[in-house]
Amino acid sequence: MGVADSPFIKACYGRNDGAIPVWIMRQAGRYLPEYRQVRSKVSFQELCRSPRLIAEVVRQPVERFGLDAAILFSDILTMLEPMGAKVSFPDGGPVIGQPISTPEDVERLHACDVRRDLAFVLAGIDEIKQRLPQTPLIGFAGSPFTLFCYLVEGKGSKTFDKAKIFLQRYPEAARQLIDLLTDAVAAYLNEQISAGADAVQLFDSWGGILAHDDYRRWSAEPAARIFATLKSRQVPRIFFVNNVAPYLDLVREIDCEVIGVDYRINLATAATALAGKSVQGNLDPTVLFSGPEVVAARTQDILRSLTRHDNLIFNLGHGILPETPLMSVETMIKTVKNFRS
Amino acid sequence: MGVADSPFIKACYGRNDGAIPVWIMRQAGRYLPEYRQVRSKVSFQELCRSPRLIAEVVRQPVERFGLDAAILFSDILTMLEPMGAKVSFPDGGPVIGQPISTPEDVERLHACDVRRDLAFVLAGIDEIKQRLPQTPLIGFAGSPFTLFCYLVEGKGSKTFDKAKIFLQRYPEAARQLIDLLTDAVAAYLNEQISAGADAVQLFDSWGGILAHDDYRRWSAEPAARIFATLKSRQVPRIFFVNNVAPYLDLVREIDCEVIGVDYRINLATAATALAGKSVQGNLDPTVLFSGPEVVAARTQDILRSLTRHDNLIFNLGHGILPETPLMSVETMIKTVKNFRS
Repeated sequence: MGVADSPFIKACYGRNDGAIPVWIMRQAGRYLPEYRQVRSKVSFQELCRSPRLIAEVVRQPVERFGLDAAILFSDILTMLEPMGAKVSFPDGGPVIGQPISTPEDVERLHACDVRRDLAFVLAGIDEIKQRLPQTPLIGFAGSPFTLFCYLVEGKGSKTFDKAKIFLQRYPEAARQLIDLLTDAVAAYLNEQISAGADAVQLFDSWGGILAHDDYRRWSAEPAARIFATLKSRQVPRIFFVNNVAPYLDLVREIDCEVIGVDYRINLATAATALAGKSVQGNLDPTVLFSGPEVVAARTQDILRSLTRHDNLIFNLGHGILPETPLMSVETMIKTVKNFRS
Repeated sequence: MGVADSPFIKACYGRNDGAIPVWIMRQAGRYLPEYRQVRSKVSFQELCRSPRLIAEVVRQPVERFGLDAAILFSDILTMLEPMGAKVSFPDGGPVIGQPISTPEDVERLHACDVRRDLAFVLAGIDEIKQRLPQTPLIGFAGSPFTLFCYLVEGKGSKTFDKAKIFLQRYPEAARQLIDLLTDAVAAYLNEQISAGADAVQLFDSWGGILAHDDYRRWSAEPAARIFATLKSRQVPRIFFVNNVAPYLDLVREIDCEVIGVDYRINLATAATALAGKSVQGNLDPTVLFSGPEVVAARTQDILRSLTRHDNLIFNLGHGILPETPLMSVETMIKTVKNFRS
């Protein structure tokens, strides 16, 4: 069976007639002992720059759990470094040196040459495809607004007020920066597809802190531009929106195959509002800290709530957490695999 | 004109026929020079414990801007101190000493006697009513789940994963703690009404990070119990939900007069989904950092989008930010006051 006939790719196009595919956001990560083993020898940034180690950690969860898709291992901020930003991970979380605080600061950033400057990512994709030729591989990037948030705030934040205030104070400079990021993300995902990615996911991790009008302008429209650029590549395009509920009407209009739905909203409510698009999600990652009966029941609740299953990719509604018990992951996957609609 | 005939109280009951009332979440705060003047002499906790200073900072924005409601000045964690929690504000944000991390830790918390242990709050309300007898005064408390978040996490957080994991790992202990907090909040708001509060607002600042099913159990049901206890007091009950969009169907069913709507969702969309309840909100606080034309236009966008104005209380969709330009606040208020439907 080729990748094109895999349950994951078929579900992306709403024509899966077999078992429901499942993968897990942040599936290559600290909750896995074999990942921690790799990380005990190299830093996070060394790992992100080694094609061999990228392929190794990508392979681990796919083989351990029999997952239906692999996803590139990288950080959403990796692409910002050759664009002129200084990215480090002093205590685990990303920090940007000299954040953008004035319109002049925007001039410090520039386009990069993906094939030259991010060759290690593309080589990582090539290496993954050699190791896992039968598994659909998802390439990814952060959404322009999510990258903008880190560039302006300098680090993670509860509300990214600095980033939001920059939008209001300096709308022209914000437009310039968002446009630069939009073009860069489109080029980056294009090269990931050329290198072998079978699908792409755009992570809108922080769009969900915007007012509806601002979401349209600063997140939905740039995402639509990126997906339009990728349309001719004929691979499924997934838009994950962390906190999609306020913006369902805008997201529905975007030309892409799949919406990744966060854990807050009922998946059935989102699926109805998205009118035919495939959906991916959305078990709350913290549910995996309850007992096996609850994990199975909450997984089944989601599966049973949906009227269609041919366009469903099961996943968590956010990245898996570091201390997650492996037994819960197995219970969740088994529950999905055993489900018959 | 008495308080009962004020635009604010009439709008809470959906029968306002005059100008649209407006107040501002966190209206007594650091963006005001006269507030900073008071705070230059006393700590935040000293301010929260002085009835005279409480009344002083509550009065400041009402008189400066001619606002339609006053709101008690306090911290949502103040009520936790006599219940056995250690609360401090080392760098501005609240920190709980010895956070709850096991079921046994829940035993450390207990009910308190509001009239004895929180007498300074009730005396503050009395003092406010003497100074502002014609202005509706809103009493408030944090929602049980929001208080729970701080008790378990120990401080503010982006995602309150520890608090959410506690719910999943220890559902019985979580139930015990949420029940204790529910009873405590109900008693606290009851005493605030007895002391003179003309309305009450329950701040569900962190409920918006829960899966829909968990929101029902851990946030909507406790809120409904609190509001049921207060029903006979015949004052408007306001439920502010930060990130209400995923839970509109649950919130609509709660017996209260007003839903405070955050800035993410279009207010008109929320108002339609809430089917007749009064609504309060919802300009994004960061919009106040743009120029006067944009502030006026965005305020008017909200006003014009609504089909009903007799049940509208204009407000921001979250607390006003410390650096907010006063001119923008004036522009927003003037735009609301001049609006004719």
